[in-house]
Amino acid sequence: MTTSYDVDLDPGWAVGGKPHGGYLLRTAVERALDDAHPHPMVVSAHYLSSPDAGPAVVEVDRLRSGRRVASSRVRLQQSGDARVEVLLSHGTLSTDEDYWSAPDSAPPQLPPIEDCPRVPTTGPTGRTVGYFDHVDLRLDMATAQWALGKPQRQAVVQGWMRRDDAADASPLDLLVFADAMPPVTFDLGLMGWVPTLELTVFVRGLAAPGWLRVVQRARLLRDGWLDEECEIWDSEDRLVVQARQLAGYRVE
Amino acid sequence: MTTSYDVDLDPGWAVGGKPHGGYLLRTAVERALDDAHPHPMVVSAHYLSSPDAGPAVVEVDRLRSGRRVASSRVRLQQSGDARVEVLLSHGTLSTDEDYWSAPDSAPPQLPPIEDCPRVPTTGPTGRTVGYFDHVDLRLDMATAQWALGKPQRQAVVQGWMRRDDAADASPLDLLVFADAMPPVTFDLGLMGWVPTLELTVFVRGLAAPGWLRVVQRARLLRDGWLDEECEIWDSEDRLVVQARQLAGYRVE
Repeated sequence: MTTSYDVDLDPGWAVGGKPHGGYLLRTAVERALDDAHPHPMVVSAHYLSSPDAGPAVVEVDRLRSGRRVASSRVRLQQSGDARVEVLLSHGTLSTDEDYWSAPDSAPPQLPPIEDCPRVPTTGPTGRTVGYFDHVDLRLDMATAQWALGKPQRQAVVQGWMRRDDAADASPLDLLVFADAMPPVTFDLGLMGWVPTLELTVFVRGLAAPGWLRVVQRARLLRDGWLDEECEIWDSEDRLVVQARQLAGYRVE
Repeated sequence: MTTSYDVDLDPGWAVGGKPHGGYLLRTAVERALDDAHPHPMVVSAHYLSSPDAGPAVVEVDRLRSGRRVASSRVRLQQSGDARVEVLLSHGTLSTDEDYWSAPDSAPPQLPPIEDCPRVPTTGPTGRTVGYFDHVDLRLDMATAQWALGKPQRQAVVQGWMRRDDAADASPLDLLVFADAMPPVTFDLGLMGWVPTLELTVFVRGLAAPGWLRVVQRARLLRDGWLDEECEIWDSEDRLVVQARQLAGYRVE
């Protein structure tokens, strides 16, 4: 049984007129949650075509409803066309300690926040990136030399992140943050747009209050496609998000 | 419009009576492919409940059909219940060279194949793992000391892999191989079953003929869930698969 919800896509979250992918993901996913399974645990989204700001519809189908985990299918559509298609599994996240973590797993080393400039809504490409009014990102400039015209060819970008209103990040906010870093292709001198084909987000726990640390990196660009991997760590040094997307790039 | 296909799940691929997750994924995904979009590029699967060997139904919905990429929704069901729910984007993979790869990206260092024993169909837990009749996996024993009762607490396992019939691996075979390593939890002394909740596979190119090298590792076990990341490299040192799954573990 499909349940439909009318939603209104906020132009304030748009990038070049098109709503931000993480914002679309949050908008879709929150309709699938319920009291028994309130938190996204793993979300897989395929982006079909960008909607415009304005009215849209979210359709939700519950696929199963277990004691620990429920799974749902969610579709965001506009003008009768599917725009974002999502599968998610959801349950109750915890603040549990790690049972085990890899020896080389650690939060990114960042300069103090006051030494990291806030990313402006109008960036180096001249494009308006509206979601930076909502997401407060302070970049480690050692990983953002591309903003000064000096790409380092490392394809790593990192910084501090929180909501613009300084409120604690909910699991739904983490979905937004998992897609909020500038493209790592900027550091390879590729200043074009990097549209997401697919994005999977693992939310591994509830984030502690305070600033988050985010690092995004690529492993391979080939044949017009790259992977971008994003990790988010909370103020208590807990890994709370592992996300990876396949996105398109274009060599000018 | 939904197209349905009758399929027969082969008991020869079963693990403890339940068909292997990678085999189910291949069985579902191959029904969505067409001549214009013949290769899976990114596949996201949520595993809802394990089917039994025997008759099942695969339902396919085409979500979009572009020049470079098509996207489809695929559902494998049995006895009227959805068992595996999949979203995929598919197109035409290449043998292109890397445009850029991360400085620390390299295939796993493995001993010669003749020094790596083949994984038997009946493993150290006494469970029958039928898919090892079809997937020829030669383990690097330095990463499989758990098989001798000596877990190393590294949660990394690597080895050589190819089809049992020595045929070249198709992109569909790569979906199987992306879920064919033993659980890395064995190396943490956890010998229980590790059911997949979600698996995303990026197929980054066509594999060159010959043996593949596969490495799987975990980054974090917490609250009953772990990530398992799998990379597959071909005989020409090209990264052809990046996969990650969220799976359950149980501390005895």
